[in-house]
Amino acid sequence: MSGLKYREEHKVKTFECDIQKEMTMPALINVMLETSGMQSHLLGNTDDQMSDLGLSWIIIQYYIQVNRMPRRSESLIIETEALSYNRFFTYRVFRAFDQEENLLVEVLTTFGIMEMETRKLTRIQPELVAPYQAEEIRTMVRQPKIEPVQAANSSEQPFRVRYLDIDGNKHVNNSKYFDWMVNTIDMDFHSEHRVKSVTIKYEKEVGYGNMITSRMSQESLEDGTIRTAHEIVNGGGVACVANMIWEKR
Amino acid sequence: MSGLKYREEHKVKTFECDIQKEMTMPALINVMLETSGMQSHLLGNTDDQMSDLGLSWIIIQYYIQVNRMPRRSESLIIETEALSYNRFFTYRVFRAFDQEENLLVEVLTTFGIMEMETRKLTRIQPELVAPYQAEEIRTMVRQPKIEPVQAANSSEQPFRVRYLDIDGNKHVNNSKYFDWMVNTIDMDFHSEHRVKSVTIKYEKEVGYGNMITSRMSQESLEDGTIRTAHEIVNGGGVACVANMIWEKR
Repeated sequence: MSGLKYREEHKVKTFECDIQKEMTMPALINVMLETSGMQSHLLGNTDDQMSDLGLSWIIIQYYIQVNRMPRRSESLIIETEALSYNRFFTYRVFRAFDQEENLLVEVLTTFGIMEMETRKLTRIQPELVAPYQAEEIRTMVRQPKIEPVQAANSSEQPFRVRYLDIDGNKHVNNSKYFDWMVNTIDMDFHSEHRVKSVTIKYEKEVGYGNMITSRMSQESLEDGTIRTAHEIVNGGGVACVANMIWEKR
Repeated sequence: MSGLKYREEHKVKTFECDIQKEMTMPALINVMLETSGMQSHLLGNTDDQMSDLGLSWIIIQYYIQVNRMPRRSESLIIETEALSYNRFFTYRVFRAFDQEENLLVEVLTTFGIMEMETRKLTRIQPELVAPYQAEEIRTMVRQPKIEPVQAANSSEQPFRVRYLDIDGNKHVNNSKYFDWMVNTIDMDFHSEHRVKSVTIKYEKEVGYGNMITSRMSQESLEDGTIRTAHEIVNGGGVACVANMIWEKR
């Protein structure tokens, strides 16, 4: 179950880091996605060509496992690999390694292809994924179940969807949902905990000017870790859900 | 009036671009500042060493002139050069060139050095700036006058200072003020105009959790361009002011 791999070097920039001088999750996701864009480009499958077909890749789900977050000025190797695809989804992994090839972060992603006009998922056309040499499968790849926000024990923050949240694909960049979730967790919690894993599932698009609500709750688990549950609500509908697992720094 | 130059290549990433597939102003500023950080590092003058002295570089002012904004996937040459310094300020220029060495954007910056404990400007210590071989001057370098927001004709948006707005220097990253200003201009205006120049002056720090108001007004000038005037207000005090000049796309 594996297709073509592609690697790039990336030096972690100051502006990609948080107050802990560690790379932020949205910055890491952005850098990783850039490598699959570059792989597609080298294989002759550019965003512009997708766009000419009236199609766009969209992210459905991420499952992120963190050994440690990259640090400011660190040189990373970012690797991406198309794993497999079925009728509606393609599965791709991203990995960040340090210079000694230690695995720092692994991200399993589920992509779909959206018809730009209807904004709906469309069947994967085998000729679009053939260049990546991923395996065709008949099953779905399952990711960890996402526990809902506990209403009795939740906090929330409002966010307006900003002009600069919209990217060249004319929709809100998927990393912005991380921003809204991460920014709903307070600074004291961030300074005392590090993230171990994130599962995030995109349900519906949000648009420019929408006022969204980022809700969360927090729960201690038996193994001593903490799980935060998140949802992005837009006008009554749930746009995105996530769980993050944290341990003490 | 010039010191050491330093150059780096930069390929414009998808996530650095707006809906027009042009690099955003905050992304460009971040990439430019990274090159001066790298020059300082190579000259043995790192942020960490400044921090050990209880000092931090801060941006006082930018004057940005745009021939055209860089485009998605374009390979840029980013150049920085320490120009001169006086008792309290250092002057540095950043330039973005395309591969044919056409000048795309030039940014003249005024930096100061802040004592971390008092959060106040301190005198420039010549030994801190000597490695850059900039010229000592006795005068101030003037930048274009910033016209105030016209109260009668203004609009505004509130913004909360978020966890991820805070960088490794423990203050709000200066590019976030651009975010607040650019995001207060509506999408229709952005789609019809391109920025020609920006003058921005930082007056006071804002902190985590602060609710700031981004106010702006807009005025047509005799030469056919449009000037937007901006201010970031925090609890009654003005934290930052700016003018941007725009022309029709």
